[in-house]
Amino acid sequence: MKSIYFFNEADGKNRKLFGGKGAGLIEMTRIGLPVPPGFTITTQVCVKYYDNKKRLPKDLMLEVKRNIGKIERSTGKKLGQVENPLLVSVRSGSSVSMPGMMDTILNLGLNDKTVIGLAETSKNPRFAWDSYRRFIQLFGKVVFGIVDEEFNKIIQEEKNLKKVQHDNELDEQSLRKIASYFKEICSKHVSKPFPQDPYKQLELAIEAVFKSWMGERAVVYREKYKITDDLANGTAVNVVAMVFGNMGDDSATGVVFTRNPLDGAKKIFGEFLVNAQGEDVVAGIRTPKPIGEMKEKFPLAHSQLLKTCVKLERHFKEPQDIEFTIEKGKFYLLQTRSAKMNSLGMIKTSVDMVREKLITKQEAILRLNLGEMDQLLHRTIDIEAAKKVVPLSKGIPASPGAVSGIAVFDVKSAMEMNENGFKVILVREETKPEDVPAFFSSVGILTSRGGKTSHAAVVARGLGKPCIVGCNEIKIDYMTKKFEINSKTITEGDTITIDGTGGKIYIGMIPTVEPKLTDDFSTILVWAGQLKKLGVRANVDTPEAAKVARKWGAEGIGLCRTERMFNLSDRLPVFIEMIMAKNLEERKKALVKLQGLQKEDFKQILRIMEGYPVTIRLLDPPLHEFLPNIEQLLSKIHVLEKSGEEDEIKLEQRLLDRVKELSEFNPMMGHRGVRLGITFPEIYQMQISTVLEAAAEMIREKVKIYPQIMIPQVAMTRELDEIRKIYENTKKEVERSYNIKLEIKFGTMLEVVRGCLVAHDLTSVADFFSFGTNDLTQAVFSFSREDVESKFLPQYLDKHILEENPFQSLDLNGVGYLMQIAISKIKKVNQNLEIGICGEHGGDPRSIKFCQKSGLTYVSTSSHRVPIAILAAAQSTLENKIKK
Amino acid sequence: MKSIYFFNEADGKNRKLFGGKGAGLIEMTRIGLPVPPGFTITTQVCVKYYDNKKRLPKDLMLEVKRNIGKIERSTGKKLGQVENPLLVSVRSGSSVSMPGMMDTILNLGLNDKTVIGLAETSKNPRFAWDSYRRFIQLFGKVVFGIVDEEFNKIIQEEKNLKKVQHDNELDEQSLRKIASYFKEICSKHVSKPFPQDPYKQLELAIEAVFKSWMGERAVVYREKYKITDDLANGTAVNVVAMVFGNMGDDSATGVVFTRNPLDGAKKIFGEFLVNAQGEDVVAGIRTPKPIGEMKEKFPLAHSQLLKTCVKLERHFKEPQDIEFTIEKGKFYLLQTRSAKMNSLGMIKTSVDMVREKLITKQEAILRLNLGEMDQLLHRTIDIEAAKKVVPLSKGIPASPGAVSGIAVFDVKSAMEMNENGFKVILVREETKPEDVPAFFSSVGILTSRGGKTSHAAVVARGLGKPCIVGCNEIKIDYMTKKFEINSKTITEGDTITIDGTGGKIYIGMIPTVEPKLTDDFSTILVWAGQLKKLGVRANVDTPEAAKVARKWGAEGIGLCRTERMFNLSDRLPVFIEMIMAKNLEERKKALVKLQGLQKEDFKQILRIMEGYPVTIRLLDPPLHEFLPNIEQLLSKIHVLEKSGEEDEIKLEQRLLDRVKELSEFNPMMGHRGVRLGITFPEIYQMQISTVLEAAAEMIREKVKIYPQIMIPQVAMTRELDEIRKIYENTKKEVERSYNIKLEIKFGTMLEVVRGCLVAHDLTSVADFFSFGTNDLTQAVFSFSREDVESKFLPQYLDKHILEENPFQSLDLNGVGYLMQIAISKIKKVNQNLEIGICGEHGGDPRSIKFCQKSGLTYVSTSSHRVPIAILAAAQSTLENKIKK
Repeated sequence: MKSIYFFNEADGKNRKLFGGKGAGLIEMTRIGLPVPPGFTITTQVCVKYYDNKKRLPKDLMLEVKRNIGKIERSTGKKLGQVENPLLVSVRSGSSVSMPGMMDTILNLGLNDKTVIGLAETSKNPRFAWDSYRRFIQLFGKVVFGIVDEEFNKIIQEEKNLKKVQHDNELDEQSLRKIASYFKEICSKHVSKPFPQDPYKQLELAIEAVFKSWMGERAVVYREKYKITDDLANGTAVNVVAMVFGNMGDDSATGVVFTRNPLDGAKKIFGEFLVNAQGEDVVAGIRTPKPIGEMKEKFPLAHSQLLKTCVKLERHFKEPQDIEFTIEKGKFYLLQTRSAKMNSLGMIKTSVDMVREKLITKQEAILRLNLGEMDQLLHRTIDIEAAKKVVPLSKGIPASPGAVSGIAVFDVKSAMEMNENGFKVILVREETKPEDVPAFFSSVGILTSRGGKTSHAAVVARGLGKPCIVGCNEIKIDYMTKKFEINSKTITEGDTITIDGTGGKIYIGMIPTVEPKLTDDFSTILVWAGQLKKLGVRANVDTPEAAKVARKWGAEGIGLCRTERMFNLSDRLPVFIEMIMAKNLEERKKALVKLQGLQKEDFKQILRIMEGYPVTIRLLDPPLHEFLPNIEQLLSKIHVLEKSGEEDEIKLEQRLLDRVKELSEFNPMMGHRGVRLGITFPEIYQMQISTVLEAAAEMIREKVKIYPQIMIPQVAMTRELDEIRKIYENTKKEVERSYNIKLEIKFGTMLEVVRGCLVAHDLTSVADFFSFGTNDLTQAVFSFSREDVESKFLPQYLDKHILEENPFQSLDLNGVGYLMQIAISKIKKVNQNLEIGICGEHGGDPRSIKFCQKSGLTYVSTSSHRVPIAILAAAQSTLENKIKK
Repeated sequence: MKSIYFFNEADGKNRKLFGGKGAGLIEMTRIGLPVPPGFTITTQVCVKYYDNKKRLPKDLMLEVKRNIGKIERSTGKKLGQVENPLLVSVRSGSSVSMPGMMDTILNLGLNDKTVIGLAETSKNPRFAWDSYRRFIQLFGKVVFGIVDEEFNKIIQEEKNLKKVQHDNELDEQSLRKIASYFKEICSKHVSKPFPQDPYKQLELAIEAVFKSWMGERAVVYREKYKITDDLANGTAVNVVAMVFGNMGDDSATGVVFTRNPLDGAKKIFGEFLVNAQGEDVVAGIRTPKPIGEMKEKFPLAHSQLLKTCVKLERHFKEPQDIEFTIEKGKFYLLQTRSAKMNSLGMIKTSVDMVREKLITKQEAILRLNLGEMDQLLHRTIDIEAAKKVVPLSKGIPASPGAVSGIAVFDVKSAMEMNENGFKVILVREETKPEDVPAFFSSVGILTSRGGKTSHAAVVARGLGKPCIVGCNEIKIDYMTKKFEINSKTITEGDTITIDGTGGKIYIGMIPTVEPKLTDDFSTILVWAGQLKKLGVRANVDTPEAAKVARKWGAEGIGLCRTERMFNLSDRLPVFIEMIMAKNLEERKKALVKLQGLQKEDFKQILRIMEGYPVTIRLLDPPLHEFLPNIEQLLSKIHVLEKSGEEDEIKLEQRLLDRVKELSEFNPMMGHRGVRLGITFPEIYQMQISTVLEAAAEMIREKVKIYPQIMIPQVAMTRELDEIRKIYENTKKEVERSYNIKLEIKFGTMLEVVRGCLVAHDLTSVADFFSFGTNDLTQAVFSFSREDVESKFLPQYLDKHILEENPFQSLDLNGVGYLMQIAISKIKKVNQNLEIGICGEHGGDPRSIKFCQKSGLTYVSTSSHRVPIAILAAAQSTLENKIKK
């Protein structure tokens, strides 16, 4: 294997071998762009270095010398020669970008003699000595591991002596003195004189770059971003002839994006600085000028830059982010890489580049980074405004979007204030289903307890309302209707702003900006829709949400939670009446009332989703979730006892007794779902007949509907069988009374581990399946999602016991593996049964790709994540094609 | 296929073909015992009958006629002949005993003419007419489906008329009249005269027996006892010549066990009645005499009986339960079957029969019914005493054994009363770890909430103390220290008796009897121990319990729960100090104190279990379980506020804050087990170092110890890895400071679903595994064991959605299947790793057999179930051998 490639003798597509930086330089050289001469030592040499107990391969330096010779011939300069000395930069570069993680040395080749030659050649002794002292410092730091402070102290002393403020005010004499001190620091540190032989310098520098690959910073970075050996193994070393943008007013340096990374506009975007080196731009001592102004000062270089940008995009088929230098009027490219863009920019450039025929539609979709796309779909805090204020606190961002409103602390106030025209933000320790009416009246939700999948978070996301949870710094006092944080108090009626995307809470009204739903986005969604194989449905509980879902491209409803409907203010009292019923008869009376209310909802949802399936899940949560909690009731009774209204006390006492009776140690695994259906068959019977009647009435109106009835929490075939009997009987009745034939699928959630393990058996009763991965994740990990996020999960992530929150991104080895067991069991019985997923994971790109690979029919997610799901599904189809 | 077998022409081993009763009669005939002549219509005919749309096979009645001919030749009587008429009984009999579930007809062959012949032959007209009216009634009921009341009404009227009390006081004339009325009832019912042709009678009777196989009673019975078609398919019909024990004082009838079923004593046991038929014994009008008295009255028959018993046992190799009749001095056997014995009897007969060389040791073990063995290992309510009292209420029997004591309602009283020499029974709504000190002071526990695996139940079983849970009829008032039930009130100090085996609660002291731990039991345990392959260990938390376990035959400790040790009264305050610690330093201080206390326990346990492994599980429950609950604290603060002790209020308030902070929605899936170990590494570090130091000190004392450290709740390899690092570091330290080499295994529970799914991966960190099937069952079903048993589980069992409580007997299709996945994953990596089970299922025979089949190394169960586990393990080995 060749160890070293001169830039003009390689093919830059091999990023693995040359690293990103090397590949860019090689490619630019190959297509004739003005890159200073140089060469790349491959990443394989780095691997060999480590295999060889950290010794450079024997002949490497000979090879280096040969290639330096080539640079010398090309530049007319010579390494180590006093007259017109060659200086080079030595830069690391692995195949995956690890910004700032590894080391760079500039101006290598300077020594006590060549510095004088440089002074002469450049006719700028101050520049020469400044370059030298910078080199020594960088070399000392990178090669010898000397901390910056030691060097900075010397400079500071000199500045004090000379009574100047900035480094650039030091004159040649001072710089000479500093260089000499710097050398002393180095030689003291290693008990050897500072190396004067440029080849020795080069050898040490190369080795230092290799060493930096296993440096703590780099190792941690790779761990954090999961860069495995598979993706990047070792760093390359790039040795390039130095060019200087700081050789006078005919020199400059700059950074340019070939398109605007903020909005994707097709116009170069960047800055330049006259008479400066790259690091000066970073240091920020002088303010760089917008790239437009370059045209005037450097017309030739500017036109070269424009041509270069076009050429690079045509070559790389990606907007580029480039560094250039003008040395005495001559234009050089020092680096190119794909430009990092925000979501808006990414979408616009995708569509534009397709139109420019640079890329195909498939490529346009594949290049999108979906992880950041969420920000596009919600209002955000105005960045400029946010800069000026200090957030009050930070919680767990649970439902994205930013919003302002007045703080309220209970359902009643929320509803009253809202009716009086105020925008309100509901602030609670935690929320329960009884609080849901307040969700409808509020523009945002803030809680001091719970995690990303707590009740508040899930409901808020379902409604698409901004939400912050688990902000445990705030201390809420419901009695006095206020919350305290540090020393500040926010009382009911005070305005606050919450940013559900970033998790920050502000006092007062902070301006927010509309989500930018561009035509480009719609265009790319249409393309994605045509490409994808996986169905995308929405989790939706109300007619309003159904409308949004359909607008965003949902192909049906994968999960309609009937219990959410019971939470509306006109239904909750009837539902509680049902729970409090003393006997079956009373319970049935309440159920009839509910049926009337719920049928209209179903009809509306079915009508809105005409032509698409609507999967309606029967009652899932335990009944006590609809009642107030024990503490609340105790305190209410306590208050009532003082005023002495006996009848009311009795009523509350009865409620308390019922709550106690229904209360559970572990409600998540309690009396809920199908278990309710079996013990209170009349509840499921009511729900089923409501759905069927709604369906019958829609069919009469000639609306094309596809309702499906889904049973939650099924662990055993006999459970499902028992409910199916109710379903079949009810269907017969409804068919008879409407004189209509109903074709409605009956299926089950797969959200209990046992259900997955006996899925083949469930096929005898279920027409379709839907994985409830929220509950499944809880059961597989034995993690209660309402507890873990505020308890040990953060530490688990910190300590890398978990790499990701399994409630956000599907745990493939555990939950995913169990899903695959279930899928294969089902498919062995019947290849054609519909199997979907309706947990929160249905909106997570990585999880969606897993779902496609595992052979699912569709994913279902909250309305606002439908577009992301569509894009992820399309990417997954394309990726699978590429693999095949 | 032959449809009918005369008793002397078949092989009675084929119970499936002949049914139990038929097989017994055939076998007895075959070995030359005096059985009245008869024949069996096979079960296959019954199957054919149903296959053939409920029509008897064409030639069946011809075949019946031929066989009746054989009976006639043998008896000299003739069916339907007036002179010396043959009468027969028609009895059902399937291969599995279904007592009283199917039908029998006696005296068939009687009609208006033969009854006169019978009167003459017997010289007893009253007997003849009584037999006739009985036959008509039975025939009417079985064949025509006429209810008994219609017949009984007639008899009653006649008795009124004749002014007599009992049936047997009616004279011949009355019986004639009754017979005539009975015939009228029948002919009215079917609009046909009562059948006079004996063959017609026989045909109808045979068909009626076949019909009874699908009768509601029989179907329900088979469902209830899980008698599948595999076990019994159809009933046979036995037609046997009638013999009469009611032909005068030289006749009799009796029932005999070849050995005493109550204690297994080798002496026949039974009763007989002179001049009576079998049903008279049942009717209970006259009191039967003990079988011993027969010798005097019927010396010949008695000696025949004794010989018969010996012969039968020799033949069947099981104690038999037989029916016999003496007709005019002649001895007949009517039935034989294996005798049902209680556990004590079963064990004694097993050992005796081996000594008598009737059976092998293997057969002795295989014949034991382990389901009922538990009763042997605990004190029981004296049966005689229990007959005289009405239980106060019934709860869920959670830990077997009966005990009396005074009711107390809190820890303090329990301890004080106990110290004052009282036996106390702790009565609570539910219990928490903080109540455990009271468990030690109590002789029994009674709760009004929770199920068989609630905290109270599990702790009580662990301690081997009687316990009843979920007795929701009792209303406890802690304030006034009493509980109410119906209208009765039990106040602190009142004596109650609880029967943890049957679940009954009594007022006052009810006598109880000692468990009978016979030599025979020990003998059979030794035999079983030599045969079994599977290891049997005990779940034990204290030195005392370890002693019991070893005595009972445990080969080590499979689960030593360290948290139980923290519940002792001297430790709990220190443990709470640890939980309340404001910082790491304070926490460590408390931990050091605990370490000192716990080390002694470990040393004692290791010493007691010398030579055997002792698996110590680190802290598992969430910390809040050790603190009082919110309601308790609120009420305490409420009380304190009145008396105004501010410091104390503050203290309680701080406790309340901490409880709230630690409280969880679903503690079962919360911050516990390895999650505690990761977030509070100092706790696990303390526990590990305590175990290691105890081990080091035992090694110094030259005790042969095999401690193992086990981590609970592991879901991910990285969790275990993190704790293993602590373990390795601690080991190094202890080894250094004791200058000793420690060989201690480090392993994990498999009680989280994910742990099972990635078990192959866990092998990289774990030296051994132990299934925690309690938690695994919870997670697989999403059933919270503390909730389900008092909520929906009873209904699930009633409705046959579940056939068994999965917390008692392992759910093979779900939990068992998951275990098998994990086992095969582990064995693929390493065949030799120890894999055990330490859930409650480790003591359940059916589950133990599954464990053996699945390749587990051992089962671990509570001390008191160790003998049962040993027997089950031996049975399992033997059953597997038979299969092979």
